[in-house]
Amino acid sequence: MTRISILIAGVVLTCGAVSAQKRPVDYVNPLIGTARMGHTFPGATVPFGSVQLSPETDTLSYEVDGAYNKDVYRYCAGYQYEDKSIVGFSHTHFSGTGHSDLGDFLIMPTVGELKLNPGTADDTQSGYRSKFSHDREVSEANYYKVMLDDYNITAELTTSERVGFHRYTFPKTADAHVVFDLKAGIYNYDGKNVWTFVRVVNDTLITGYRQTSGWARTRTVYFAMTFSKPFTSYGRKSYDKPQAYKGFWRKFNQEKNFADLAGRDLTMYFDFDTRENDEVLVKLALSPVSQQNALANLNHEIPHWNFDSVKAAGQDWWNNELSKIDIETISEDDKVNFYTSMYHTFLGPTVYMDANGQYRGLDQENHVADGFVNYTTFSLWDTFRALHPYFNIVQPRRNADMVTSMLAHYDQSVLNMLPIWSHYANDNWCMSGYHAVSVIADAIVKGVYTGDAEKALEACIATSNRVDYEGIGEYIHKGYIPADLNSTSVSSTLEYAYDDWCIAQIAKKLGKEEVYQEYMERAGNWKNVFDERIGFMRPKNSDGEFVKDFDVLDTHGQGFIEGNSWNYSLFIPHDPNALITLHGGKEKFAGYLDSLFTMELPDKYFENTEDISRDGIIGNYVHGNEPSHHVAYLYNYVGQPWKTQKQVRYILNEMYQARPDGLGGNDDCGQMSAWYIFGALGFYPISPGALTYDLGSPLIKRAELNLENGNTFTVVATNQSPDHVYVSRVLLNGTPLKRHYITHKEIMGGGVLEFVMSKKPNKK
Amino acid sequence: MTRISILIAGVVLTCGAVSAQKRPVDYVNPLIGTARMGHTFPGATVPFGSVQLSPETDTLSYEVDGAYNKDVYRYCAGYQYEDKSIVGFSHTHFSGTGHSDLGDFLIMPTVGELKLNPGTADDTQSGYRSKFSHDREVSEANYYKVMLDDYNITAELTTSERVGFHRYTFPKTADAHVVFDLKAGIYNYDGKNVWTFVRVVNDTLITGYRQTSGWARTRTVYFAMTFSKPFTSYGRKSYDKPQAYKGFWRKFNQEKNFADLAGRDLTMYFDFDTRENDEVLVKLALSPVSQQNALANLNHEIPHWNFDSVKAAGQDWWNNELSKIDIETISEDDKVNFYTSMYHTFLGPTVYMDANGQYRGLDQENHVADGFVNYTTFSLWDTFRALHPYFNIVQPRRNADMVTSMLAHYDQSVLNMLPIWSHYANDNWCMSGYHAVSVIADAIVKGVYTGDAEKALEACIATSNRVDYEGIGEYIHKGYIPADLNSTSVSSTLEYAYDDWCIAQIAKKLGKEEVYQEYMERAGNWKNVFDERIGFMRPKNSDGEFVKDFDVLDTHGQGFIEGNSWNYSLFIPHDPNALITLHGGKEKFAGYLDSLFTMELPDKYFENTEDISRDGIIGNYVHGNEPSHHVAYLYNYVGQPWKTQKQVRYILNEMYQARPDGLGGNDDCGQMSAWYIFGALGFYPISPGALTYDLGSPLIKRAELNLENGNTFTVVATNQSPDHVYVSRVLLNGTPLKRHYITHKEIMGGGVLEFVMSKKPNKK
Repeated sequence: MTRISILIAGVVLTCGAVSAQKRPVDYVNPLIGTARMGHTFPGATVPFGSVQLSPETDTLSYEVDGAYNKDVYRYCAGYQYEDKSIVGFSHTHFSGTGHSDLGDFLIMPTVGELKLNPGTADDTQSGYRSKFSHDREVSEANYYKVMLDDYNITAELTTSERVGFHRYTFPKTADAHVVFDLKAGIYNYDGKNVWTFVRVVNDTLITGYRQTSGWARTRTVYFAMTFSKPFTSYGRKSYDKPQAYKGFWRKFNQEKNFADLAGRDLTMYFDFDTRENDEVLVKLALSPVSQQNALANLNHEIPHWNFDSVKAAGQDWWNNELSKIDIETISEDDKVNFYTSMYHTFLGPTVYMDANGQYRGLDQENHVADGFVNYTTFSLWDTFRALHPYFNIVQPRRNADMVTSMLAHYDQSVLNMLPIWSHYANDNWCMSGYHAVSVIADAIVKGVYTGDAEKALEACIATSNRVDYEGIGEYIHKGYIPADLNSTSVSSTLEYAYDDWCIAQIAKKLGKEEVYQEYMERAGNWKNVFDERIGFMRPKNSDGEFVKDFDVLDTHGQGFIEGNSWNYSLFIPHDPNALITLHGGKEKFAGYLDSLFTMELPDKYFENTEDISRDGIIGNYVHGNEPSHHVAYLYNYVGQPWKTQKQVRYILNEMYQARPDGLGGNDDCGQMSAWYIFGALGFYPISPGALTYDLGSPLIKRAELNLENGNTFTVVATNQSPDHVYVSRVLLNGTPLKRHYITHKEIMGGGVLEFVMSKKPNKK
Repeated sequence: MTRISILIAGVVLTCGAVSAQKRPVDYVNPLIGTARMGHTFPGATVPFGSVQLSPETDTLSYEVDGAYNKDVYRYCAGYQYEDKSIVGFSHTHFSGTGHSDLGDFLIMPTVGELKLNPGTADDTQSGYRSKFSHDREVSEANYYKVMLDDYNITAELTTSERVGFHRYTFPKTADAHVVFDLKAGIYNYDGKNVWTFVRVVNDTLITGYRQTSGWARTRTVYFAMTFSKPFTSYGRKSYDKPQAYKGFWRKFNQEKNFADLAGRDLTMYFDFDTRENDEVLVKLALSPVSQQNALANLNHEIPHWNFDSVKAAGQDWWNNELSKIDIETISEDDKVNFYTSMYHTFLGPTVYMDANGQYRGLDQENHVADGFVNYTTFSLWDTFRALHPYFNIVQPRRNADMVTSMLAHYDQSVLNMLPIWSHYANDNWCMSGYHAVSVIADAIVKGVYTGDAEKALEACIATSNRVDYEGIGEYIHKGYIPADLNSTSVSSTLEYAYDDWCIAQIAKKLGKEEVYQEYMERAGNWKNVFDERIGFMRPKNSDGEFVKDFDVLDTHGQGFIEGNSWNYSLFIPHDPNALITLHGGKEKFAGYLDSLFTMELPDKYFENTEDISRDGIIGNYVHGNEPSHHVAYLYNYVGQPWKTQKQVRYILNEMYQARPDGLGGNDDCGQMSAWYIFGALGFYPISPGALTYDLGSPLIKRAELNLENGNTFTVVATNQSPDHVYVSRVLLNGTPLKRHYITHKEIMGGGVLEFVMSKKPNKK
């Protein structure tokens, strides 16, 4: 049903044009990944937009009785496809994360009896939520529409960069409400809301802010909200514990029509009279800095009430961004997957500054982004692998600004650290490594970041020497993190070693030989946790002995994070040849890879695997988590590229399906989708910081990369078909390519990369 | 003992000068009012300074088991003279209030075992507090010194406008600490602290902020703190409830040497090695806007470590301000009382903006004070009476800026109201009336406020028509506030009537006849609550009937706030003649006044009287609260000025004593002290908004008012002596004065007002 709706919308959007030909944006289906563990959201946003205006199908508490509520995990993006009710529409969402936050400023239109609690999924009448059906739901890039069945209200959402735009079409009633729940949030729990401040400026304008302490410890989001039609009355419900004295309680009735509100937990409502099909439009602008900036953003971006023009402008913007890669594919579904993946890759990092350039820094002070766009939401453990390298090709200007944003973060860090996992002026230090250095190195060596590289190197070095962080001191001292001191000692050692290699690449580029040598030495530290006797990476204690009880298949308690030793024993992206040698040579290593992809992982191990569904695993290869994202390409290094081709093609087809439940694991802020784009184009950067891309098996028939520098890099897959998964020959600009990789320069210079496809492997 | 210390300090300060003659500042004794209910603080501050750096002798919780803890009332200013221990030194204090807040950033130096809780007064060893003795305590204007007996540490405090400066002289120890308690505060309770954010920038610099919700609902104070000597280590204790997940807890040891802290309730400490008599100096700057502004304030105001020069500069500043009135007195104690009263009057409203002009507004947005100094802490129910009129004579520039500050508050008010009782970008709406209009009217009619008077009038009108505030709607509709709808219906009716008269005065000045007529009519509303049958103001119900059960002596539950009907029945400052007529004529009214001053108030009524000690009452006249502050001067209106003279002189001598327990009630942000100054000079503004000052009985022998306009107004009391309390003649510039008042113009024009004093009343 949804696809049909999108087709109709596509026709509408192009009416007046010569034909109703589908544009890239028309292939985007934001519902992909909204079922199970994809953790994507179906709502409206523009590319890298600050606002992600999307429905919540539940708002569970992160804690129940002070303990983790495992049911909340389903709601990292607020929406689960199988749910039957919608709680409301909030303005901020992560895409594809495995932990969460946000869900700010939840709005829900209702009619009839005023209810200020969300109610339960079982009994929507018990609160303000409403039943809905996918039959009456439309999800497009920058447009979401749904019928709220309990109220006979049609809700439509669109956005500009910093403004969420709602259009609610009401039935005739004297009892229409817009509930504005400032208490609600994603991964909320009692005490997460720190403070809320609201001013009802007049009968159409409300400003304020919401301050939370969750995954982001000290997070404030300001807003300005305006209605197209004056409300007739308004009020609030406070959930705060009463205090023995508060002078300000006494003088006013603060529950009704009181314009000056504050507290920890409060929910507001606005009442309207509506005729049949009356539209109540709401614009809500965000700011990281102030109410005035939010209001300025609102007036700057949408100084009118034309919902359709905002929707169209956002969709045109999407189309422009998606048109950076024009493709021909074997099937329509491939196009849906490709452009939806591109859509997912452009959902973040998000713009985190006001129209006037101000933003809130990590130091909780206001700053001005001087000459760059400030971004936030850096899920770097995920995105260093493919997303940022991909940006270096298709979004180099933005990626340079992302590097600048990370360096600004460093400047503001009292710990003198680059971001680990940062959002909204905070670092939650989630996952492992210090992979900002990978993103920075990749951008520097590829000439994308043209700012102060010396300063960037200094930031990378400072971060890598933060000795009190997650074993770094021991890592520097001993060359590995002792297992008796750290529960993810092996994976962190491996990741630090790779990151150190990245730092060495910057040093090399800057001609800093001493730094280069120092970090190249550190980059070899991975060898210290490789147990040659068993041929696996293995945790080692402070005394230099490998731990005794050790399970190479188990993901938990073995010294690794989100991966087992089988997968992590391949995580030397920066030196596969040395890894192969240590594993016992090419043949043995090829056997290892074969086993990885074909072995049967007993159920007990799968049960322990986080953030992915069973579909995210092939044998013991885990695609749904990131540590093995480069692994399929390692066959190239043992002279068996056809196995790379086969596995890549298999993963592209199996792990990415054009269905709500089509993603095999969390999309992880676009990393999974970026993997798809590279895979579909036929090459992949196994070691960001290096200038090469390993060749795989393209899924497209033809792709034109319209680069920012004006060049076009074309990928052609001759003889492409579903069963022609093998590459018999590769030609670069017509000349046969005698290597298993292409270079960044070759791509950015423009030209044609031709894969000649075949049903049979070319084993020469 | 304290006085001797001050004398010594006086000598030191003037050494090098020709003589050791005492300066006005040397007469200031900040300990006056620190015992019992004066609620003054003994610590260091500069005139109208943003920082009030002063010791806390206890930090009781405002709530115990969710109910009001009546013991906390003693600690409105943090210090009670009879206490035996000091908890620490915090940077913000109200002077003389009857409710409280503040107490930000409490610092306590200790040696030996580290203790992070304050401990108890009974057992100082149980926490970081220390015993102290008044024998080893010095309190001067802008200087406080005390020996912390438990630690053998000498603590000294001084300030600049926005910076608190501490000098701690330690014994030799490897175990010296500076405890930095961000959890502590005045009138704190569980949940009052909203958020705290701290960055340890380096081993001498810390920045951050503290956000509370108490009397001020949404209050944030930023700080930058620097040590003269690097600490060797530091740490914190968090009192926050642990959450099921906080990623950031895992990666660092946040308890020790961790630079990036945040939470609801936390206490920090800094460790030092000290040799014998090592000084550790601490500077802590405040800002209402940001950490950067706090740091800029610090560097702007005290870019060095010379404690003594900051102390001397502040004392010179005080001396300059106090020298605005040069006096000769009958006794030294009178000089102490006079200059200490002046000192108290210059403690607030306080400067509330950064050195760069930025401040936080009522809308919680940052603003720039364009062409004025922004002030906060407007205890207007108290200070409209004498403090602001006094400022119109001795601090007109500041008072004009205070008016501008109140108008900025109005601009930022989403309720379109002027401040009622405002502090730190909040209104707590404490007490009654909308007396900002009195301050504004007085400043306009006296030509002190020269800004946009039309706009000021608009703000006054808007405030007076805020129909949902404290009975204003009913007041406008019925001409009185019905007793069945409001518990302080009579006093509010009376105060609104006076305030409306003030608004009429602005309208008159601006030639707005219609507004003038409207508000003059409202100004007569006091007649609606006067019960001629009993000769008292009396609560009236909605049905127009006076309430039946009524006690003219009781302060509680009778329709009045902080006063009984006996006192409030005289509160028509703007029309005493009409009041006298309604009371039955001059003779009857004089008898009423005689009774007021001489009757014996049964104990049961006294027990109900708030905010004052028994010393604050004469008969049934309550000087310790404000509503009768004009009453002694009403004898002038019944042709018995000698009774005004006698009562004023009696109050001056009895209610103000040069002792810690010398104040008869809360000093109320300088209102009590301003009454004293006027009284001692021999005139008083019974109706701010009018241009006249009623004559009383001067206490001084001679006073020279060195006015900002360059003129000098001299008051001379010829034949002055303790028992010459009556005025036989008054001469203005040598000409006998045939009236009981002088005008503002006469004062500001300069000249000589001579009172010829006598032992006997002049009844002609």
